[in-house]
Amino acid sequence: MKITIAVDAMGGDSAPDIVVHGVSLALLRYPDVKFILYGDKARLDPLIKQVNMNSSSVTVQHASEVVASTMKPSAAIRNAKGSSMRLAIESVAAGDTDAVVSAGNTGAYMAMSKVILRTIKGIQRPALASLMPTTSGKTLMLDLGANVEYSADNLTQFALMGEVFSKYVLGVKSPAVGLLNVGAEDIKGHSTIQTTSQLLREANWIDNFYGFIEGNDILAGTVDVVVTDGFTGNVALKTAEGTYRAIKSCLDLNFNASIFTKIGYLLVRSVLKKLRTQFDPRQHNGAIFLGLNGVAVKSHGGTDAVGFSYAVGVAIDMASREVNEHISKNLAKWHTAVESEPQNDKPLTVSDVAMAS
Amino acid sequence: MKITIAVDAMGGDSAPDIVVHGVSLALLRYPDVKFILYGDKARLDPLIKQVNMNSSSVTVQHASEVVASTMKPSAAIRNAKGSSMRLAIESVAAGDTDAVVSAGNTGAYMAMSKVILRTIKGIQRPALASLMPTTSGKTLMLDLGANVEYSADNLTQFALMGEVFSKYVLGVKSPAVGLLNVGAEDIKGHSTIQTTSQLLREANWIDNFYGFIEGNDILAGTVDVVVTDGFTGNVALKTAEGTYRAIKSCLDLNFNASIFTKIGYLLVRSVLKKLRTQFDPRQHNGAIFLGLNGVAVKSHGGTDAVGFSYAVGVAIDMASREVNEHISKNLAKWHTAVESEPQNDKPLTVSDVAMAS
Repeated sequence: MKITIAVDAMGGDSAPDIVVHGVSLALLRYPDVKFILYGDKARLDPLIKQVNMNSSSVTVQHASEVVASTMKPSAAIRNAKGSSMRLAIESVAAGDTDAVVSAGNTGAYMAMSKVILRTIKGIQRPALASLMPTTSGKTLMLDLGANVEYSADNLTQFALMGEVFSKYVLGVKSPAVGLLNVGAEDIKGHSTIQTTSQLLREANWIDNFYGFIEGNDILAGTVDVVVTDGFTGNVALKTAEGTYRAIKSCLDLNFNASIFTKIGYLLVRSVLKKLRTQFDPRQHNGAIFLGLNGVAVKSHGGTDAVGFSYAVGVAIDMASREVNEHISKNLAKWHTAVESEPQNDKPLTVSDVAMAS
Repeated sequence: MKITIAVDAMGGDSAPDIVVHGVSLALLRYPDVKFILYGDKARLDPLIKQVNMNSSSVTVQHASEVVASTMKPSAAIRNAKGSSMRLAIESVAAGDTDAVVSAGNTGAYMAMSKVILRTIKGIQRPALASLMPTTSGKTLMLDLGANVEYSADNLTQFALMGEVFSKYVLGVKSPAVGLLNVGAEDIKGHSTIQTTSQLLREANWIDNFYGFIEGNDILAGTVDVVVTDGFTGNVALKTAEGTYRAIKSCLDLNFNASIFTKIGYLLVRSVLKKLRTQFDPRQHNGAIFLGLNGVAVKSHGGTDAVGFSYAVGVAIDMASREVNEHISKNLAKWHTAVESEPQNDKPLTVSDVAMAS
């Protein structure tokens, strides 16, 4: 299977330099993949020559506009028609490329991707997913902010998409999927979370539904996939980042307190480097928009070339391992489950399936 | 003002020993306060003699039952009528004591307090509040789990109660009150959070309403009071605790990696102690039930005597600084604001006041 990746070469704090460098690193790992870089040709051509890439693997498509990091999503959709970001996303919709990667304005990227790619049939809303560090490795968490209003159907679909991503991209054999709540007991939580849990248990759509988990379970690595709504997920993600930063600043301050701690610091630098590697939010590069008709991966705006190449790798894995096809297949299983039932004209929802099964 | 504190002497992992010891420590700081200890008289009397307290300050009221840590809240309300926890709460309702402190079963304690003490007139629902560590000190956060379903009125009342606590108990002159959201911009968040922000801005009930904050602002100490619903607050609190524990376990593991890091560890022990003092969840002892007709403070179940005495101190401060009276006064201000408006028979809600003002 031949994969072509569309890259928004102008998105991110250090674009296009970091982006081009990131693509060259990705090419070392994936020599068979083709790249189309969207952006200012006059700036991109010399950069591509500098990094000495295999020129047959990389094409530049000129884009005269850039979506600024301060641009509102609605304005970006209305006005930035010739932007590198938009052209890159459109190439996926047109079937010219298999996935798009951008380090640009998150809100604009998410909104544009939703409008241009639309959701997979059967998925009501896409979700923003990312990897969280845990004591024992990483866990996938979704939604992280795409949906601040949500239903039990939405959460159930997030669970299905998270399971597929964990299985086919991260290679987890039977991913344990947990539903974020305020307690592990069955009676805990609000009505939406109660209904979601019931849907997931009754319908058996998730092979390995763990049940409810709590906030402390996220970084403890209790499950492989953490399912939550976009409001709670966004707050939890940023609270974890803020806790890391507060602890980091407490350590930095106190290592400077005396001559003993300064000498000690030199001896334990390797420990602190491990801590950074494992928990620094900048290390967990990127977010994935799950549920769209096409693969769209977001790299952190402040990423370096290695980080960008990692985001490219996720996009390649998602495309080559056919994550969206697997999501559709799993969705189809639900439909099959109620085939013999009398149907009405409304499009089938998850609740309908639950009622029927 | 003479203060009497009711203590559930049998609640907590190491009760009654730790509790009695904690009361003796509190007496050193508050020699004028009287204590009534509810619990097994045969066990309490010798413990009180051991710690050599001023016997005129401490009375024991025998209670034959204990609320087990595993007991469900509903069962505790129905069955544990003669328990130390219930008798202690009832003494506040009867006016015999000014506040109650327990390190026992949180769910049972919260449910019993709600049923026995009821909410302050004008407060629809009580909230669970606690102090969170920040880079620069501490911030009060509420609700932490009492209300997983909630309205804009509830959140507005939490803001008012948080402001009063911060001002009169923590001594913050003009507490900045922030509303936890997924972004700082005005348009962010779901409809309930949007309405709450509007209510707080329009009605000027909070002297210093900061506006929206994000998850990372909690531990950064951006505001003095973090207002959120019980679902989000509970997840954020436990995510912060989980992040601290994950980082702690990463440090512990890697300090043992080599002879250099082991020596370094000895030199930087003071730094790690500071980290523990500032961020270990066990250091932030207790939670406060705000909005009840009476002061009820919860100490951590696993606390030591120093921690318990701190929880007792919070209860004394709340009672002597008349936190509930200030909450009622501030609520009354709203009512006054609409006095001249035509009224219907429904009890006045926050929304009504907002409409009228």
